[in-house]
Amino acid sequence: MAKQLVEQITNMDKDFAQWYTDVVTKAELIDYSSVRGSMIIRPYGYAIWENIKASLDQEIKDTGHENVYMPLLIPESLLQKEKDHIKGFAPEVAWVTHGGDEKLAERLCIRPTSEVLFAEHYKNIIHSYRDLPKLYNQWSNVVRWEKTTRPFLRTLEFLWQEGHTCHETEDEAQKETLKMLDVYADICERVLAIPVIKGRKTEKEKFAGAKSTYTIESLMHDGKALQSGTSHNFGTGFAETFGIEFLNREGKLQPVHQTSWGFTTRIIGAMIMVHGDDKGLVLPPAIAPTQVQIVPIAQHKEGVLDAAYEIHHSLQTSLRVSIDASDKKPGWKFNESEMKGIPIRLEIGPKDIENGKVVLVRRDTGEKIDVKNHEIETAIERLLQEIQSSLYEKALEHRLTKTSVAVNMDEFKDNLLQVGGFIKAMWCGDQACEDQIKEQTQATSRCIPFEEKGVSDTCVYCGRAAKELVYWAKAY
Amino acid sequence: MAKQLVEQITNMDKDFAQWYTDVVTKAELIDYSSVRGSMIIRPYGYAIWENIKASLDQEIKDTGHENVYMPLLIPESLLQKEKDHIKGFAPEVAWVTHGGDEKLAERLCIRPTSEVLFAEHYKNIIHSYRDLPKLYNQWSNVVRWEKTTRPFLRTLEFLWQEGHTCHETEDEAQKETLKMLDVYADICERVLAIPVIKGRKTEKEKFAGAKSTYTIESLMHDGKALQSGTSHNFGTGFAETFGIEFLNREGKLQPVHQTSWGFTTRIIGAMIMVHGDDKGLVLPPAIAPTQVQIVPIAQHKEGVLDAAYEIHHSLQTSLRVSIDASDKKPGWKFNESEMKGIPIRLEIGPKDIENGKVVLVRRDTGEKIDVKNHEIETAIERLLQEIQSSLYEKALEHRLTKTSVAVNMDEFKDNLLQVGGFIKAMWCGDQACEDQIKEQTQATSRCIPFEEKGVSDTCVYCGRAAKELVYWAKAY
Ligand SMILES: [Zn+2]
Ligand SMILES: [Zn+2]
Repeated sequence: MAKQLVEQITNMDKDFAQWYTDVVTKAELIDYSSVRGSMIIRPYGYAIWENIKASLDQEIKDTGHENVYMPLLIPESLLQKEKDHIKGFAPEVAWVTHGGDEKLAERLCIRPTSEVLFAEHYKNIIHSYRDLPKLYNQWSNVVRWEKTTRPFLRTLEFLWQEGHTCHETEDEAQKETLKMLDVYADICERVLAIPVIKGRKTEKEKFAGAKSTYTIESLMHDGKALQSGTSHNFGTGFAETFGIEFLNREGKLQPVHQTSWGFTTRIIGAMIMVHGDDKGLVLPPAIAPTQVQIVPIAQHKEGVLDAAYEIHHSLQTSLRVSIDASDKKPGWKFNESEMKGIPIRLEIGPKDIENGKVVLVRRDTGEKIDVKNHEIETAIERLLQEIQSSLYEKALEHRLTKTSVAVNMDEFKDNLLQVGGFIKAMWCGDQACEDQIKEQTQATSRCIPFEEKGVSDTCVYCGRAAKELVYWAKAY
Repeated sequence: MAKQLVEQITNMDKDFAQWYTDVVTKAELIDYSSVRGSMIIRPYGYAIWENIKASLDQEIKDTGHENVYMPLLIPESLLQKEKDHIKGFAPEVAWVTHGGDEKLAERLCIRPTSEVLFAEHYKNIIHSYRDLPKLYNQWSNVVRWEKTTRPFLRTLEFLWQEGHTCHETEDEAQKETLKMLDVYADICERVLAIPVIKGRKTEKEKFAGAKSTYTIESLMHDGKALQSGTSHNFGTGFAETFGIEFLNREGKLQPVHQTSWGFTTRIIGAMIMVHGDDKGLVLPPAIAPTQVQIVPIAQHKEGVLDAAYEIHHSLQTSLRVSIDASDKKPGWKFNESEMKGIPIRLEIGPKDIENGKVVLVRRDTGEKIDVKNHEIETAIERLLQEIQSSLYEKALEHRLTKTSVAVNMDEFKDNLLQVGGFIKAMWCGDQACEDQIKEQTQATSRCIPFEEKGVSDTCVYCGRAAKELVYWAKAY
């Protein structure tokens, strides 16, 4: 039984896609349903999302934002108002045409994102500079009619938060856009132990209707990139279309400057693909639903279960700890705890009790550590911190190893084949070159990084004068 | 300006419906949108929901339940499976017929409730008695195509939690059904200060597809009842239809026993209509986003703002406290704080500072209390508890005053006209009588209460032998 559990996972370097599917199902993060492209987020998966959400929600509130809730359905005419926006989203929205038996006079789409609803509301409630800034956020579900789907990474419906803000000045909106990108980067790096590259999207890759889009990009185990959060500066585009105007300090009417920013359940997919291994999930302690799993050894022997429960009880107030006192074999319990990515396994058996100690086993390295009874709590707390930073360091090293420089297309293609990962290469700024690179290599421009030095003077594709350094990669 | 704010609210005894609409908009709980029957829940309204949700989520978890997330969309064929269920919900679901430009092969409805999705999932994951019980809960949005809508009380879309559980035995399922009804009653009474009557719904009023439905019913200021939470025992009905079977302890296949239970944003409407008054909202301290509003008096005078901020700072760690240091007049600030139902207003001016004290003003009674500086925190904590229980007591007294007994239809109609509220009257159990009572009086059977003595031997409508005591009322 114990063996069987592990054998069910495909080796990650053999077939990464299958490994991923195995992990999300065997670790009981998700289940499929009869709704094409939608997933059921099971208790273990949802608990991870709740922990991510709690951290992010706190940062969103600490930066002065307020949560609101907008309608799920958007009238077609409202969605149509902003032309670039509708062009970007029309092909992928679900349309409601009937309410009960009645055909609707106007179709409603299920929100793919809520810019137009916020715009309409902001027009109602913003009149003067005294009403600004408006810093709103919403936690919700959205639907995008994707053709091919994969759990967490691309699903018809997903959960996210979407922030929407209004400001007096261009400068303030730009600061907000970058501030929230920093919040996302902090959640990724500090909480999820995922190192990210911050930067700006090219015109081609920016959000429909935005003036500029900023992104954090992370690198998966298989060398593919994943966009992990985006923040958009809308300028006054939506405000002009929707008439969101305010009397400024000089008594003149002017449109507000807007931003929006989003972070989704997709990040769970990233976390799996950054930290996971051939035994299954590896969870960062900061968001692990269970941080310590206690496994009694020879639990039928006198005193073992009592000792295990005593430790469970003493750790419960400060840690997320659980105990597996079922009648399954220890080997089976070890495997299950590994599959679920629980950061620390605590083993306690008759010999440990005799010696006044327990054994801590790190999920990430497999290292076993003997700890005296009176030191258990501090040892665990230290170890959890160590695991958290160690996961980050390992992921960062992996990314750096898989980041290369290319100054011409031969190098570009060669690197992509040999190294994979991110390729840093110069770009002239012409979308034609960006298109060609994608066509020839399947790599897309991920971002124009902040504050990085150029690697040559000429565009990697056309050889003309370079304008920007770009991170390129194949991406999820 | 200050006067204007108050004058905008309609007197509640003059036009209760208009008073309600005034309060939800002027206290900035909601805004309307261009989506018919949907509402925007504004920051103040959403903060109330977040507080209610946090309390209820904790109780749901403490009773051993796990949160999950199911798809928003349900294929028509899946919804059709349970005949009573679809009959109940078909007239009020929204249908998605197109994804992008493509017509779907099968229509999908937006979940009006998720029984069928849980049933399908449970069939996949339950195989043995060892897999039971399954105690799942979901926080989500649902859509029901209502013809007439009112903010919080009846909207096309609303937010809720829906619990769905599976059990080995009939007895266990029944205990779960009643346990969760108790949880709802506790949230209403302890957290929202709304007294409730617990009982069972009649066959006519029970949930589509349920074996029995239990309810908590509360009474609004205007004498109308509001169903405040329901818990359903499904027996093995869904399990048989969907094939959710398990190997029991005797090694035989048998269907599981199921329950479901739900609690919605509707309760915010109840809270408004139970506690509110002619000055606006009155919020129970347990869920008030701001429990104490500090209003500096003559704040331009030296030392006033400093003293106010110092108090703000010292209370911040243990209480939800805010300060209005804007340049609006104190009278305006008082009115706004009252409109928003903030439980305690703390006034501090030059004279108070001189005397080493502040003034606390209760929102519910208007009472003013001088408190010495060193006693502020304990005085506020005591006062918040007092307000919380006083709101409950007042609401209970109102309900008792508006509860009467009727032994025949003359009394019934007379009481309804003179007293309003709940009428306790006996019923023979025949749906024809229930239908007639509704037709003649617009009062519906609210519940068959637990453990209450009968008030006569014969049915209030037909005079035949009585089977049950029923609470009747006009209801939202
Ligand atoms: Zn070029
Ligand atoms: Zn009768």
